[in-house]
Amino acid sequence: MGSELMQPVMTKDELTEFIAREMPQVKDDFVIDRIGPMEADVRMPVAYRHLRPGGTVSGPTMFTLADLGVYVAILAMIGPKALTVTTNATIDFMRKPEADADLLCKVKILKLGRALAVVDGLLYSEGNEAPVARVNMTYSIPPKG
Amino acid sequence: MGSELMQPVMTKDELTEFIAREMPQVKDDFVIDRIGPMEADVRMPVAYRHLRPGGTVSGPTMFTLADLGVYVAILAMIGPKALTVTTNATIDFMRKPEADADLLCKVKILKLGRALAVVDGLLYSEGNEAPVARVNMTYSIPPKG
Amino acid sequence: MGSELMQPVMTKDELTEFIAREMPQVKDDFVIDRIGPMEADVRMPVAYRHLRPGGTVSGPTMFTLADLGVYVAILAMIGPKALTVTTNATIDFMRKPEADADLLCKVKILKLGRALAVVDGLLYSEGNEAPVARVNMTYSIPPKG
Amino acid sequence: MGSELMQPVMTKDELTEFIAREMPQVKDDFVIDRIGPMEADVRMPVAYRHLRPGGTVSGPTMFTLADLGVYVAILAMIGPKALTVTTNATIDFMRKPEADADLLCKVKILKLGRALAVVDGLLYSEGNEAPVARVNMTYSIPPKG
Repeated sequence: MGSELMQPVMTKDELTEFIAREMPQVKDDFVIDRIGPMEADVRMPVAYRHLRPGGTVSGPTMFTLADLGVYVAILAMIGPKALTVTTNATIDFMRKPEADADLLCKVKILKLGRALAVVDGLLYSEGNEAPVARVNMTYSIPPKG
Repeated sequence: MGSELMQPVMTKDELTEFIAREMPQVKDDFVIDRIGPMEADVRMPVAYRHLRPGGTVSGPTMFTLADLGVYVAILAMIGPKALTVTTNATIDFMRKPEADADLLCKVKILKLGRALAVVDGLLYSEGNEAPVARVNMTYSIPPKG
Repeated sequence: MGSELMQPVMTKDELTEFIAREMPQVKDDFVIDRIGPMEADVRMPVAYRHLRPGGTVSGPTMFTLADLGVYVAILAMIGPKALTVTTNATIDFMRKPEADADLLCKVKILKLGRALAVVDGLLYSEGNEAPVARVNMTYSIPPKG
Repeated sequence: MGSELMQPVMTKDELTEFIAREMPQVKDDFVIDRIGPMEADVRMPVAYRHLRPGGTVSGPTMFTLADLGVYVAILAMIGPKALTVTTNATIDFMRKPEADADLLCKVKILKLGRALAVVDGLLYSEGNEAPVARVNMTYSIPPKG
């Protein structure tokens, strides 16, 4: 139960810098809004490349933001282990995101074990309270070296 | 039960052209290798932007290819309904894809109902028989207009 | 957005009676603790038949309670439509439930559309705050007759 | 890659006896039809307690059979480790099972790692070729003692 009370060991700035160094491919795709104990909020400015027919945001775009949000929420708690990887992800697409609003993801870690983390995320179009998608991810945490 | 015997109503070339027109954002990301009855094989040439720490391909990249593969497999059977959308997706990441091989996705439609399609996909690094990921998707099919 | 503000149209007693009549097979397996707007809490007294090696509660038992909880949460909002059925369910088993505590499930409807409902559930062993499992279900709602 | 070529280390009879001893609660619920390399076929005689409104088989019944099928498929390959447990399960319910036919589940192990197994199952009503449900499970394998 101790993990529920743990504090983050990395700040928002440290995580932003870590991502820029280790994952230069995605550093311009998203912004870390907030890091909390077992929580993170991230944001993606929606661009033309994220859109799909009907003026909506693509599923892979939502998956990408959720995956990044879960990754930073976990690293915030366990420190900079780049090789932490997704093992399972489930997404329900519930409503059509807006093409002209930032996409937000609010992440909450439900279990932070030694080997596995189980994490929830809800995605929103900024300015709208109804979630556009829900994501559940399981991450594998590398053993201490 | 008739759907299991149905033949595709769009060819590989018609689907490639449809994607280029309706989803210009992704047309250069993937190639349709084969269309069959209730099946499709698609391919993504892996590029630098798809990579992640440890020399592997990102989860969102695999999700993107699977989503496109499922989309074309369904459109092949029902015709060009751009607004067909993913409602649920589950991915298991099983093995580390290779950074220097094309990513392949073999898609099989398990159920093609009037309103919902249920579809399986297996992802591979070209040249390796062990799947790197499995994906299951449910798509919502728009009513006939 | 209106659904978020909707009130239940069936009470806890009406739902208990409905289950006893329509699903006599399960009426003794669980208890409805609370019905709220877009929410329900249900409980299963754990019995010998639910146990598994290592003194824990079986996965199918958790699935059964979650499925019943989601069903009553939806019927509470839409009325007694017995043919409402699960189309997709995902469960993450996170911690070992206790063999000698009631199993609880707290259900929250995330989306209540005309044809589909998307619902979250968290399962607990009574007396312990850390969830033992998380479940996500999609239900198909029959059209108005 | 070796796992794909591995042979089972337990026979059908040894597994049936193991289940009877370790899980007496379920031994009368299902039958092991066949064990193969990385595969198993199991069967559940459908009884009154498995039924639901509309003359169909309940979702939890399908989950129960799939969970048992995956469990025996894994134990067949790794030997009698009772504490092997499900960590994640996803089910898609695709067609209505028949109330008066046995429920079958055909299980295939996609990955058998040291710590995790990833497994697919397709459920059928005996005598009907169209699957009624698909299940995907991840199991955690206890370390060697």
